[in-house]
Amino acid sequence: MPGYLVPEHHHLTPGSEIEARIAKAQEALSEQGLDALFISHGVDLFYLSGTRQSGFLLVPARKAPLLLIRREFERAKSETPLKEVVPLESFRDLPGLTQGYLGDTPRKLGVELDVLPVNLFSRYQSLWPDTQFVDASPLILKLRSVKSAYEIGKMRKSGELAASLYAQIPGFLEPRMTEMELAGKITAAAYRAGHQNYLHARGYNQEIFSWHVIGGQSGGIVSAVDAPFGGFGISPAFPYGASQKKILPGEGVLVDFGICRDGYPVDLTRMFALGSAPDLICRAYDALAEIEKTLIKNLAPGTIAEDLYRLAVDKAETLGFGEAFLGLPGLKARFAGHGVGLEVSEPPFLAPGHKTALESGMTLALELKMVFAGIGAAGLENTVSLQETGIEKLTPADERFIIV
Amino acid sequence: MPGYLVPEHHHLTPGSEIEARIAKAQEALSEQGLDALFISHGVDLFYLSGTRQSGFLLVPARKAPLLLIRREFERAKSETPLKEVVPLESFRDLPGLTQGYLGDTPRKLGVELDVLPVNLFSRYQSLWPDTQFVDASPLILKLRSVKSAYEIGKMRKSGELAASLYAQIPGFLEPRMTEMELAGKITAAAYRAGHQNYLHARGYNQEIFSWHVIGGQSGGIVSAVDAPFGGFGISPAFPYGASQKKILPGEGVLVDFGICRDGYPVDLTRMFALGSAPDLICRAYDALAEIEKTLIKNLAPGTIAEDLYRLAVDKAETLGFGEAFLGLPGLKARFAGHGVGLEVSEPPFLAPGHKTALESGMTLALELKMVFAGIGAAGLENTVSLQETGIEKLTPADERFIIV
Repeated sequence: MPGYLVPEHHHLTPGSEIEARIAKAQEALSEQGLDALFISHGVDLFYLSGTRQSGFLLVPARKAPLLLIRREFERAKSETPLKEVVPLESFRDLPGLTQGYLGDTPRKLGVELDVLPVNLFSRYQSLWPDTQFVDASPLILKLRSVKSAYEIGKMRKSGELAASLYAQIPGFLEPRMTEMELAGKITAAAYRAGHQNYLHARGYNQEIFSWHVIGGQSGGIVSAVDAPFGGFGISPAFPYGASQKKILPGEGVLVDFGICRDGYPVDLTRMFALGSAPDLICRAYDALAEIEKTLIKNLAPGTIAEDLYRLAVDKAETLGFGEAFLGLPGLKARFAGHGVGLEVSEPPFLAPGHKTALESGMTLALELKMVFAGIGAAGLENTVSLQETGIEKLTPADERFIIV
Repeated sequence: MPGYLVPEHHHLTPGSEIEARIAKAQEALSEQGLDALFISHGVDLFYLSGTRQSGFLLVPARKAPLLLIRREFERAKSETPLKEVVPLESFRDLPGLTQGYLGDTPRKLGVELDVLPVNLFSRYQSLWPDTQFVDASPLILKLRSVKSAYEIGKMRKSGELAASLYAQIPGFLEPRMTEMELAGKITAAAYRAGHQNYLHARGYNQEIFSWHVIGGQSGGIVSAVDAPFGGFGISPAFPYGASQKKILPGEGVLVDFGICRDGYPVDLTRMFALGSAPDLICRAYDALAEIEKTLIKNLAPGTIAEDLYRLAVDKAETLGFGEAFLGLPGLKARFAGHGVGLEVSEPPFLAPGHKTALESGMTLALELKMVFAGIGAAGLENTVSLQETGIEKLTPADERFIIV
């Protein structure tokens, strides 16, 4: 059997990085009285092991992790810095392997109950009949919400790529091209530059994608998602994002196109137009820039997430845009920003009821949008990182409203 | 509040189609002694209601369905032919609304336990403490596996689009472009033509995407998925499909690019090369065409799915390609074909242990691949429909090995 040679363009997560994550996870396990984590979700597996091959990761509270790989073993071994990696032939081997490693049946096992399907969980329950299962997703998501310097560096690289891609958009725009056609041109340029087009998000039924190219009236169209607008999308079977609507001179074109390298995306939105843009959309865009300034001024370790949401809403009202901010009245999005990491939308959320105190190391998309029925949407979004030294914009794309 | 106007390029599922699906679902509910289905999964919701807005669908065994919409109500009402559509403000309203409609608390409720996350299911259990929940996914997937003439017509349209896109690939190919660059060019052309780039699949952790552009040695690289090969992919965080590997003259380039319109994809694979292709890959491709002929000759109502798998494996052995067929020894895929519908990989599976008898109306991707370590992969794949009148290839793309 040949081994696996990591190709030159693949970057492996450093051992020190995985070690630090595992140490923090183990600290949280001890605090919560859990014997171990039993990870099955691909994104969490990648976060804690450096590989996204198929399998499970057992993280005991007081012992090195054990990576159990179903497919492909040689590749997982080449990608992970973890030492204990064993092939897993069958589900039925799980109790034996884990008990052999832990020295005992786990009494309290943390699993990802927010994403784990019921049928798979039932198999866990029959494999470990005496084990108590606890939802460990809050623990994992909390860990993941605070980024290391390494992770912020990765996101900075994605942000640089995004800036260079957005600089090409004016050259792509043509009158009467469809939203999908523009999305395709951006996508092709992004692929060429090494963008990972598949973005992750955790929610059940949450279909995350990057091609939000929204021209004119599309910006007033709401869909299934909790967002200020959804756009028409390509059909009722996929009712969000770019559509076959033609982009017309004189309307605002909003491009919200998450860009990702090495698994770490940034989220950003900018505005474009052919010939001219409606005065209302331009003024709304200026107001969004003001709201962003207010948020950035108030972003600091200790700030409460929902307070930033309120601040944004209040500022929009002060500027005379309360009705349009975050969506049409009665159909507004319930957040003004979200964490960004291995999942493009993850905690913390700048949203009512979210009492999380922000911490140094968090990365946030400030997702500022306004919607005007029949006219369209205005949007400005940057991904920022909150560090002891201050706020850094990870998305240095030109912030002018670009009229071509 | 403005209503929702369906745009010209959106096609709505006809009322007669939804009616027939509901009638079949109700027949199955009665057979299985279930009071109702309670649908939450987006794809199933679209199948049974014609809208993929956010909400739930209650399908009683003996009464018209009730569609409960969280977001967006006006849009869902414009998209569904169902008559009973009500807004759902809060989860807590579910027991009252369903009990009011059914006249009683459901005793046995069918839910999608293969995809439903544990935490959401726990909410169901606390909302309906006296209800018995049954996994209804097998019922739904069985219904969905037999396509109507309408659905086959939709897939035929996707197949025509795929054929016209594949005809453009020779014009896209350039020496030393990356796999991702070629994938980007195909994607851009596909977007322009109305392709839905987001493909659905049901499996937990299953990341379905269309850009399998695999040049030379990439075809010998296995990854997390149950497939003959996975490719390098863009990074260890997304380790499948096209990569930054350069496409070189003289190597085989495999393009497995699912194309989707109106929610109904087709799956197909063809081979290309710059200048020339390795003789072994060309001979393997010819052998795959022979295997396909054998399968098509034996595809008929009543044929058992796993028998077709055996037939393909036997034929590959007879042709002298047993070792390469479906993957490297020890790392082979466990199927030679799969159903295709609203989910690009769905039952029936041509795989060991799958005793399903094929039925008229089923649509199948015959996914025939061979892998040679260090050299690459050969692949031929068509989506076919099985009808009383015979077999129809829904993917009429040129089947020659194209050397540019």
